[in-house]
Amino acid sequence: VKTVSQEGEDALIRRVCQALPQGGQVLVGPGDDCAVIETGKRTPLTLLKTDAVVEGVHFLPEAAASKVGWKAVARVLSDFAAMGGYGRELLVTLAVSADTPVRWIDGLYRGMQRCAEKFETSIVGGETTSVPIGNSKVISIAGRGEVARRQLVLRSGGRPGDGIFVTGKLGGSLAGRHLTFTPRVAEAAWLTEHFSPTAMMDLSDGLARDLPRLARASACGFEIDQSSVPRHRGCSVENALSDGEDFELLFTLGARSCEKIAEQWPSIFPPLTRVGSLASSGGCLEGGWGHFEEAGP
Amino acid sequence: VKTVSQEGEDALIRRVCQALPQGGQVLVGPGDDCAVIETGKRTPLTLLKTDAVVEGVHFLPEAAASKVGWKAVARVLSDFAAMGGYGRELLVTLAVSADTPVRWIDGLYRGMQRCAEKFETSIVGGETTSVPIGNSKVISIAGRGEVARRQLVLRSGGRPGDGIFVTGKLGGSLAGRHLTFTPRVAEAAWLTEHFSPTAMMDLSDGLARDLPRLARASACGFEIDQSSVPRHRGCSVENALSDGEDFELLFTLGARSCEKIAEQWPSIFPPLTRVGSLASSGGCLEGGWGHFEEAGP
Repeated sequence: VKTVSQEGEDALIRRVCQALPQGGQVLVGPGDDCAVIETGKRTPLTLLKTDAVVEGVHFLPEAAASKVGWKAVARVLSDFAAMGGYGRELLVTLAVSADTPVRWIDGLYRGMQRCAEKFETSIVGGETTSVPIGNSKVISIAGRGEVARRQLVLRSGGRPGDGIFVTGKLGGSLAGRHLTFTPRVAEAAWLTEHFSPTAMMDLSDGLARDLPRLARASACGFEIDQSSVPRHRGCSVENALSDGEDFELLFTLGARSCEKIAEQWPSIFPPLTRVGSLASSGGCLEGGWGHFEEAGP
Repeated sequence: VKTVSQEGEDALIRRVCQALPQGGQVLVGPGDDCAVIETGKRTPLTLLKTDAVVEGVHFLPEAAASKVGWKAVARVLSDFAAMGGYGRELLVTLAVSADTPVRWIDGLYRGMQRCAEKFETSIVGGETTSVPIGNSKVISIAGRGEVARRQLVLRSGGRPGDGIFVTGKLGGSLAGRHLTFTPRVAEAAWLTEHFSPTAMMDLSDGLARDLPRLARASACGFEIDQSSVPRHRGCSVENALSDGEDFELLFTLGARSCEKIAEQWPSIFPPLTRVGSLASSGGCLEGGWGHFEEAGP
């Protein structure tokens, strides 16, 4: 019997989503950071996203509950930012066993609320359901975001010759940063206000895995200079490419904007680095994080 | 250490949600079947809902994957119906272990898609994440729905003297109906088009548990005639009150509408039964399904 790990996460999601018919209000269905819905001609576009963190995969059992809560919310806000938008409302699904300490749930909600509040998002509901004792905790966050039409950025708009940029530094997130990172909401807002990125996504599974996804969505190849990839202190190039959970922005810009952004990028933001260019074909990177192919976390 | 099972699901959710501040667009936050958001003055109201099914709790490991998929989607559509609205887009979160057969995932999506299509809802995305091998599968569905302003029904609008109604028959769902039920989307649409229910919810945890919730939200008590509760063949009164997973509509109507609806309720719909009245106080029912208080499924 063929299993999920044998088919691989990307292939599986692509295949099951292929068959899904989309209604007329759906501008972007499965395959980007968020789905994009047109709910009215005069209102911002609606973004929809869901994302889960699992004990033993995305956080260790001994992680502070409030940090787990922060991470769960920050991941979703990062996805809205990756479309040029921001989160508005969130729903929380907790699947935990009956022997979970109430104190843990309280800490989790404290962390979720802290992150939601910082980015002006409301937690509007959710549910708590039981899993058998001994099972990992699952925290799933679904959210609605909004984006102004002219600020919407998909993964699919990149063209050969566009510069490839990343915010911040990469690698080593699992030492702790993955629980406390700041989603690049302000940076994405500034970027889409002042420039027109041709493609964008957030880096969750490592540049080595995510850049090929962006390139494929844009029907492009890519060329990168691995030594230019910005690294956190103590990280090798391989760490920067493969560790994952960086939650930095990866985006592309038309050639004429590439110099201009280097001059204008605000100094209060984390550094901006050009790591390469989209090409008409080719590009190979090894590494990155696959849910069903490696042991976690 | 106090655990989730000791505090109880209702109390826990009430407490953690109390502290959540709500943004200006949020008309209804935690505590009803869905959250209600105002995204624009001229567009329908937005409904947000998330709901999970867990292997060993909401379905047995040997259940057909396509039925599990149908159930997961139908539960969410039932919640939109309970507000007077309908589902528009859904997001799917699968938390399954790497040894899950691909065939199972395919069956699940087939069932989800069949239900979504029947009720004109699009599955617009989602994600698949791994849980450790041996853990129960968790399928979480988040959705956006819409409701016309004048058709919105909350749990909180009931008044003493209002008649209490249920659609269909109750009890015995766990023998199989819980996997194949029809969400009362058509019935809710007709009802909110032709009448103005004062309060409504869907019956997921059994009348004995859900009616007190509706009454509490409306700051009312209730009186019911237990022998009038419509039962499926072979079910006792206790089954009808306590088994849960009926997914019928429970609603209240002002006294003047109670006779009228009995005359006008379409015969193609499942039967409509008045089971009692809201009162200014009092009302006691025993039984019903609590996630953290009983063994599943």
